Amino acid sequence: MVIVMGPEATGDDLASIVALVEAAGVEAFVSRGVQRTIVGLVGDVTQLDQGNLRGMPGVRDVVRVTTPYKLVSRENHPERSTVHVGGVPIGPDTVTLIAGPCAVETPQQTLEAALMARKAGATLLRGGAYKPRTSPYAFQGLGEAGLRILAEVREETGLPVVTEVVDAHDVGLVASYADMLQVGTRNAQNFALLQAVGAAGKPVMLKRGMNATVEEWLMAAEYIAQRGNLDIVLCERGIRTFETATRNTLDVSAVPVAQRLSHLPVIVDPSHSGGHRDLVLPLTRAAIGAGADGVIIDVHPHPEQALVDGPQALVEGDLELLAGVMRDFPPLLGRTPAGTLTA
Amino acid sequence: MVIVMGPEATGDDLASIVALVEAAGVEAFVSRGVQRTIVGLVGDVTQLDQGNLRGMPGVRDVVRVTTPYKLVSRENHPERSTVHVGGVPIGPDTVTLIAGPCAVETPQQTLEAALMARKAGATLLRGGAYKPRTSPYAFQGLGEAGLRILAEVREETGLPVVTEVVDAHDVGLVASYADMLQVGTRNAQNFALLQAVGAAGKPVMLKRGMNATVEEWLMAAEYIAQRGNLDIVLCERGIRTFETATRNTLDVSAVPVAQRLSHLPVIVDPSHSGGHRDLVLPLTRAAIGAGADGVIIDVHPHPEQALVDGPQALVEGDLELLAGVMRDFPPLLGRTPAGTLTA
Amino acid sequence: MVIVMGPEATGDDLASIVALVEAAGVEAFVSRGVQRTIVGLVGDVTQLDQGNLRGMPGVRDVVRVTTPYKLVSRENHPERSTVHVGGVPIGPDTVTLIAGPCAVETPQQTLEAALMARKAGATLLRGGAYKPRTSPYAFQGLGEAGLRILAEVREETGLPVVTEVVDAHDVGLVASYADMLQVGTRNAQNFALLQAVGAAGKPVMLKRGMNATVEEWLMAAEYIAQRGNLDIVLCERGIRTFETATRNTLDVSAVPVAQRLSHLPVIVDPSHSGGHRDLVLPLTRAAIGAGADGVIIDVHPHPEQALVDGPQALVEGDLELLAGVMRDFPPLLGRTPAGTLTA
Amino acid sequence: MVIVMGPEATGDDLASIVALVEAAGVEAFVSRGVQRTIVGLVGDVTQLDQGNLRGMPGVRDVVRVTTPYKLVSRENHPERSTVHVGGVPIGPDTVTLIAGPCAVETPQQTLEAALMARKAGATLLRGGAYKPRTSPYAFQGLGEAGLRILAEVREETGLPVVTEVVDAHDVGLVASYADMLQVGTRNAQNFALLQAVGAAGKPVMLKRGMNATVEEWLMAAEYIAQRGNLDIVLCERGIRTFETATRNTLDVSAVPVAQRLSHLPVIVDPSHSGGHRDLVLPLTRAAIGAGADGVIIDVHPHPEQALVDGPQALVEGDLELLAGVMRDFPPLLGRTPAGTLTA
Repeated sequence: MVIVMGPEATGDDLASIVALVEAAGVEAFVSRGVQRTIVGLVGDVTQLDQGNLRGMPGVRDVVRVTTPYKLVSRENHPERSTVHVGGVPIGPDTVTLIAGPCAVETPQQTLEAALMARKAGATLLRGGAYKPRTSPYAFQGLGEAGLRILAEVREETGLPVVTEVVDAHDVGLVASYADMLQVGTRNAQNFALLQAVGAAGKPVMLKRGMNATVEEWLMAAEYIAQRGNLDIVLCERGIRTFETATRNTLDVSAVPVAQRLSHLPVIVDPSHSGGHRDLVLPLTRAAIGAGADGVIIDVHPHPEQALVDGPQALVEGDLELLAGVMRDFPPLLGRTPAGTLTA
Repeated sequence: MVIVMGPEATGDDLASIVALVEAAGVEAFVSRGVQRTIVGLVGDVTQLDQGNLRGMPGVRDVVRVTTPYKLVSRENHPERSTVHVGGVPIGPDTVTLIAGPCAVETPQQTLEAALMARKAGATLLRGGAYKPRTSPYAFQGLGEAGLRILAEVREETGLPVVTEVVDAHDVGLVASYADMLQVGTRNAQNFALLQAVGAAGKPVMLKRGMNATVEEWLMAAEYIAQRGNLDIVLCERGIRTFETATRNTLDVSAVPVAQRLSHLPVIVDPSHSGGHRDLVLPLTRAAIGAGADGVIIDVHPHPEQALVDGPQALVEGDLELLAGVMRDFPPLLGRTPAGTLTA
Repeated sequence: MVIVMGPEATGDDLASIVALVEAAGVEAFVSRGVQRTIVGLVGDVTQLDQGNLRGMPGVRDVVRVTTPYKLVSRENHPERSTVHVGGVPIGPDTVTLIAGPCAVETPQQTLEAALMARKAGATLLRGGAYKPRTSPYAFQGLGEAGLRILAEVREETGLPVVTEVVDAHDVGLVASYADMLQVGTRNAQNFALLQAVGAAGKPVMLKRGMNATVEEWLMAAEYIAQRGNLDIVLCERGIRTFETATRNTLDVSAVPVAQRLSHLPVIVDPSHSGGHRDLVLPLTRAAIGAGADGVIIDVHPHPEQALVDGPQALVEGDLELLAGVMRDFPPLLGRTPAGTLTA
Repeated sequence: MVIVMGPEATGDDLASIVALVEAAGVEAFVSRGVQRTIVGLVGDVTQLDQGNLRGMPGVRDVVRVTTPYKLVSRENHPERSTVHVGGVPIGPDTVTLIAGPCAVETPQQTLEAALMARKAGATLLRGGAYKPRTSPYAFQGLGEAGLRILAEVREETGLPVVTEVVDAHDVGLVASYADMLQVGTRNAQNFALLQAVGAAGKPVMLKRGMNATVEEWLMAAEYIAQRGNLDIVLCERGIRTFETATRNTLDVSAVPVAQRLSHLPVIVDPSHSGGHRDLVLPLTRAAIGAGADGVIIDVHPHPEQALVDGPQALVEGDLELLAGVMRDFPPLLGRTPAGTLTA
């Protein structure tokens, strides 16, 4: 940490700072300049509150020079990690396709969507039984009935299941059905939920909060990791900006940035970021180009009847194109292609 | 709702839309233009999914022309509401001061802060026993022990207590101590929590999500209202923008905008939006000027030792100025002044 | 400046940095920590490029600890400045009302608007003869004919004139008519224009770019100041955020922030930030509450016929209320009230 | 256009609207609903001001249903355009690489950078002689001397030149040297400049304003087109958001969105959006994946000595990787690869 004193700081102000720092067992190196005096802190600064230091007399600024996350940091774990979900890898050697319906509506719709997903090269099935909705009057998901449908479709298709959990107290239930727990963008700072999924013994997909900085996203991952679970996959899904032409703004740069700062795999959700079917393939190619370790995509057999997010779901006619992207692009980045057009 | 057809739309596309709309019991008025054909929908459109309509062939855009919230809407309830918290009004006739420590740390600190609050004119005490923190390594609050301290300080000072709840399953516990439940900015779309506080039988202060539009904020309030609780106070606390000179950007315009759209009282948190002590008084005056029905302010007897957000807490020397603002500004807006310098 | 070395930095990396810094005549103080080594630079660092330092091997971050602006900085000029426009002060002792039509349309409309302005307490007349418009098909202003109208109305009303200039090569012409030159939000980084108004010998009102940080705004002012003109008034007019309920988001905190960083007066434009008549009075009161040194407001005798921004213009019926605000609020902040209801 | 009346609208309010609309020669179709009455306007609405309609009594909202740009609209010109610059195509069949130094510093540096660019597959040379800089104390470019250097390097390398113009009155001069005129992000709403480059008879590269919506970007292009110049290439270069981990946030979705709305080619600047060398290749691949018609990239022989933006310039060691991307990715999208490793 570096403390920058203002030009108005007195010798007493400086002495107080040094005393406080040294009392915390940290060394203080003072560099006096003409306009500014700088105090460099060396040692374990975790007991010093950056905000309170900033509030002390004579202090102009306090600059942190180490990252606030540790377990998920690449600095402490230089090799990039691979997370396995029901045996399926997500990591630096592959580009994993996770696909399925946004929401589980019926057994038939879920099975059809799962078969569509597999046809496009998906090796993991997505599908929501608990849906966080902006409106209390909108469909909120089937709950446990939806989880049972997902489990049945897993039986039929062999695809392990990724599904969202929205309440800390449902984590045990959802984990008893799911292969991977998803934490959604609206819960990206629901710390009770993060701690609960951290203790659930299942891999976790952590979506970035739509207003979260990369650092806050990694701090949310640190909450999960701190409970002993490092099987975390980060998912960029678009951030909120002034632009309204798309549902959210896909921050594709966040993929290489997060991969440089953290050892965790990073995937992209092109369906929710763009919010429109026509954007899914361009954004999927963009995500793979940026180095994403996978993508998660909505598909639906009859999107015009979908209860949630129909306009962004890929349909039957899109699958061959998607399969082609998943097959042809990864090798250009030295990665194994995802699945093949198998159905 | 208005459906705008694209120039490429065929007669069949239009007929499909009209059929679907009429099947939902809604009338469709078609206006054919040279460049665009418009379909105006008249009737109860709640069964029509705007997204799915947008995904239909030939549709360029779908525009909602009614508000999606009902219970909190001013259109359905033109008179502005007053919410009472332990007998203290928050509403159009007053400017209520809620003050206290950001976090409850010790009985002594909480009592001192409460006395400071009262001295500045506060009639409600704020204080957090459960603190949502970006870092898992930061102080997370005293939990129930903190609630007990708040209850004791209420006994000593007579100030009803406003305190945050962060997990749906703590709502009963927190409600057994608190006079008003606070939902924080990070939980502004934690729908399980919103529903739980809606059922708790206590007034709720709902902070705006730092990335929530005014409409989303009102939809979050609608979640609470839908469970039967209309004793909701909206709290603007700054939104996230590109500007980094302040912790968040206080959206002071949101006060009159929300008051026009909703009958609920709207207050402002100048401490958390600005993030710095020096901004608290200017932003308090700005909030009252914009028409806020109250303000919620951090005070701390020894902010340099505060465990949370010390730099933004007002100190003893600021209280007289704050009391002056709370006394002199409300009358200019035809409101009763808040408290008086009583201690 | 402080250079933070990464954990991977070698002794050679450090030696290169120190050599480069010392070659620029700057002292380098090295603090070695376990995780990080910090190099504090003391002396005149203007010849060192922060970006290039950041690109050197082993460097993790480079932190500037002095402000990049000098002439407009409050650090170098602690007393707040007052700018006089045709004899009218804008500064810390007053709250100046600048009002008039958004665009000059006809002599009659401009005169009527000026009389409305004066009635509300305005001591300066605003009005645009050159209008930057998003659409090339929209009214672009009357040009020099508009300037002549403004000069005539100044004769009739005694109100000095504030008007916008949009092209560096029009500065001489506009300055020959105007008492104060306005640089608009879209030109906040039009450096040719900033330099030209800096050399024109007239006071300048510099609107904040709708995407400019406070620091960038002050750097734009520095461009003007560097040409020898320190008669600059900063004008906050709303920034662009995700919120669409208002035209822009008034960043009212920017008023005290800019006043702390710079000695220049800071005023607010409540008309363009909110974009709606109903918001003008609440935002005017908020601006004064935040400490603004003035406000600039659109008025129009017949806004439904206005060629530009009619919906945000105040009308005859609003003037008494505005006059009341301008009279009653400033004294609460220790300032002289603006004008009186004189017409 | 659709006018939505509020529930409080009277019959007279509605009659006034209809009269005003019909007076402008536009047909008004009224649909009366229980909660809302809607007026659909059919005909040439260009004489009706949306803002003023919104300000009329009883009006809740006015929704535009046609695009405000015409000449650049894809609706009016369904086939995507190809722009030729000194014989080099930028359009749907190719992925053009434009590369060179951010700023022209010396003949030697410019030539070396041009040779680097060509080696990576560039067929157009970028380089700035006029640099818009946030600080007045930073290097502002060599001006005409820089243009002469660019012309000489074009002679030696055969690469046509793309260079920025920052002032309307320099357009003639810059156009006499350049093959393509660049308008930068800070001038994206400098309408005098847009009109001047529209009349200059040279192709124009129009960077998106860092706070411009896609619609505003296209309106800026419409300003150029309106002066008779349709040889416009749009360039996405990152927008300003809350995220500070990158210089700006590359809005990669804007590529397919702009291509759907406009027939103009769309390229991407991965150097300025990311602001860091390590991000250039991932973002280049992402841009091509999203369907960009080209990329513009900074290269520098000695970036640690660069006067502008050194940290984002690619260096010698990166060129082979870049050449590989430009060769291997375009064919996957059915496009001709850019250049080959020729030097």
